[in-house]
Amino acid sequence: MLPYAKGKTIIDLSTISPTTSINLANNVFLNGGLMFDAPMMGTSVDVEQKKVSIIVGGPKDHFEEVRNLLSNTAGKIIYAGNNGMGLYMKLAGNMIFASFINGLAEAIHFAERAGISKDAITDLFLNISSTRSPASILKLSKMVNSNFDVQFALKHMRKDTEIMIREGQKLKVPLPTTSLISNLLKIAEGLGFGELDVSSIIELYRKGTP
Amino acid sequence: MLPYAKGKTIIDLSTISPTTSINLANNVFLNGGLMFDAPMMGTSVDVEQKKVSIIVGGPKDHFEEVRNLLSNTAGKIIYAGNNGMGLYMKLAGNMIFASFINGLAEAIHFAERAGISKDAITDLFLNISSTRSPASILKLSKMVNSNFDVQFALKHMRKDTEIMIREGQKLKVPLPTTSLISNLLKIAEGLGFGELDVSSIIELYRKGTP
Amino acid sequence: MLPYAKGKTIIDLSTISPTTSINLANNVFLNGGLMFDAPMMGTSVDVEQKKVSIIVGGPKDHFEEVRNLLSNTAGKIIYAGNNGMGLYMKLAGNMIFASFINGLAEAIHFAERAGISKDAITDLFLNISSTRSPASILKLSKMVNSNFDVQFALKHMRKDTEIMIREGQKLKVPLPTTSLISNLLKIAEGLGFGELDVSSIIELYRKGTP
Amino acid sequence: MLPYAKGKTIIDLSTISPTTSINLANNVFLNGGLMFDAPMMGTSVDVEQKKVSIIVGGPKDHFEEVRNLLSNTAGKIIYAGNNGMGLYMKLAGNMIFASFINGLAEAIHFAERAGISKDAITDLFLNISSTRSPASILKLSKMVNSNFDVQFALKHMRKDTEIMIREGQKLKVPLPTTSLISNLLKIAEGLGFGELDVSSIIELYRKGTP
Repeated sequence: MLPYAKGKTIIDLSTISPTTSINLANNVFLNGGLMFDAPMMGTSVDVEQKKVSIIVGGPKDHFEEVRNLLSNTAGKIIYAGNNGMGLYMKLAGNMIFASFINGLAEAIHFAERAGISKDAITDLFLNISSTRSPASILKLSKMVNSNFDVQFALKHMRKDTEIMIREGQKLKVPLPTTSLISNLLKIAEGLGFGELDVSSIIELYRKGTP
Repeated sequence: MLPYAKGKTIIDLSTISPTTSINLANNVFLNGGLMFDAPMMGTSVDVEQKKVSIIVGGPKDHFEEVRNLLSNTAGKIIYAGNNGMGLYMKLAGNMIFASFINGLAEAIHFAERAGISKDAITDLFLNISSTRSPASILKLSKMVNSNFDVQFALKHMRKDTEIMIREGQKLKVPLPTTSLISNLLKIAEGLGFGELDVSSIIELYRKGTP
Repeated sequence: MLPYAKGKTIIDLSTISPTTSINLANNVFLNGGLMFDAPMMGTSVDVEQKKVSIIVGGPKDHFEEVRNLLSNTAGKIIYAGNNGMGLYMKLAGNMIFASFINGLAEAIHFAERAGISKDAITDLFLNISSTRSPASILKLSKMVNSNFDVQFALKHMRKDTEIMIREGQKLKVPLPTTSLISNLLKIAEGLGFGELDVSSIIELYRKGTP
Repeated sequence: MLPYAKGKTIIDLSTISPTTSINLANNVFLNGGLMFDAPMMGTSVDVEQKKVSIIVGGPKDHFEEVRNLLSNTAGKIIYAGNNGMGLYMKLAGNMIFASFINGLAEAIHFAERAGISKDAITDLFLNISSTRSPASILKLSKMVNSNFDVQFALKHMRKDTEIMIREGQKLKVPLPTTSLISNLLKIAEGLGFGELDVSSIIELYRKGTP
């Protein structure tokens, strides 16, 4: 089915289902080619600065070729394991990101309603909390100041959580929080926030307060 | 009711309900005293190194006295606002911590089941993910290696989420994720993990996989 | 504190926290009186037809007096156990009601979006499903036809779930679904459905669909 | 791909994904045949008494043939709409069933812990609650008495919720409660209850109580 794959090395940088990618890689292999899943991880700032990470899944004995090919694009290139493992790692990374952003929204909104000032909220989440991180720096002021210019659209985060959930069904792992967040993102999307940055999930909490 | 409060300044370093604390502070004030809520935030490592943060709520014009009194105990002393605001900030900080730890457990377990190696998981969450943080450093190897020596007991995290939920009812803010996590922590406690470190929540995901 | 209670029998028909009621009953008893919690259960139709049920908690050896007093008001009078037990039963009954109504909303909306006709949806939930019940009869056409005239206001259901959650914390029982539903009701309330019938929770699903 | 379908009418009584069924039906049609999805709904008691309902999706002008063919097997045969609509209705029916059973478990366990007697619990859910239904009659005594002889295995309910969730992603409908219940069922399955009746979900609440 993929005769053009013969003798080729295909590197797929997109974020798709690992199961789909593994099937595709098997198909490529049967047709005499090689395939790697190589999703990128990083913030929009990382992309601009060529400091993005690429996480590679595929045949280990050909990883060095892939590393060389990608070395100018990325700040860091990691070998994750067999085909699909790059994508599983990307999904696991996006999973904690989704939990963190949603958790931040819930906590910031709680603090706002309690009457904490913007400055104190910012100090809390950026300097005091043990969860302070590049993600906090990236998203906190967006949430506090309702500036939802897109870095990563809410609807794309929702789609990614849906891939996680389908893979979670196959792996038989419970994903109660990711499942809840996926549904909250969908509701936020229904309320009109899909095209805005994922940090706009805080608007669901604001609008959902009687 | 609190006649002994007359002329005194009471600094309460415990984590209790902000509502309770505000009532108490009013009572102290009516009896001629002053009260501050001054909960501590920080990891067990911070406590050892006297680098813990103290977040103070109470009458602003007496905050400097409190700062002086506490200056040897803490690395950082922040004024949060009126009575109760220290505790609300502490709760907001613990809320994002709970979301993060539970999200980390869900994501690590997902990665484990997908077949990612311990080393790659560690690299992902400590070096690549934009959510890498002091909390990741503190908890990741505990989860990956099932070392649940107590830094902060799971049952105490559960109790804190219960305070958040009760305060959330009063503030009328939705706390869907915190509420779910509170219940997951309780189930983990029922399964025997209450006295272990909160990072043992990952065992609920492991045991809950068919 | 309640000296006027001496020699009196107090029957409280309101739905309050069982813990509060038990404390009150103890107080009444210490002052030489008797108290019963006697919340009512039933639909608005039951109330009109004097077919409401009253569930009584309090000293068993005085239950017959209470039964006689209430016999004209209610279709059924049940002895639930000691003080507070009437209210716990009422809460347990409202808990399954909340789960059912929310589940009905989620399922009807799913069927609507799949393209099932109103008639087939009505047939499914009223005649075929093994969950067909007086509650389905009461609420189904309201949801299908978006007729949210109040029988039981959404905000009152939300408040009841909040009592359940606080009592659940005391009893240490996990209430993951009730907690989620409480938050969904709150979000619906924030979106403007609080004063409408609880069946309007279906609007959260409709508006939350991108 | 399905040449043997030519001139045939295929009636599929299994519960599969509506999307899969619609694709299959299109394929059958292109090969000159007809297909109907015709899942069954009903309790195990209904099956024994030939009172099960069959919900049919497929070309309306051939529905009467299907009705005649199935008339001896079922108590009720309903036309749901085009291909896939039978399965969507079945899923919607199982969705409210899952919500109801899980809600019943949560509420019964709450009542148990509050100290309500088995008899009063039974009276409440079978006679007083407006949610009393054939499903209550079928499952209540199983839960109260921990008799989990299989009528419908917990793991099959979990698998059905997973189909609902995948279809919900395609239809873009939020399914927060169904998603939570799916994860709770999975955790219960991980704890060893998968082969028992779905009513054994109450054991998750019992074991999950500290």
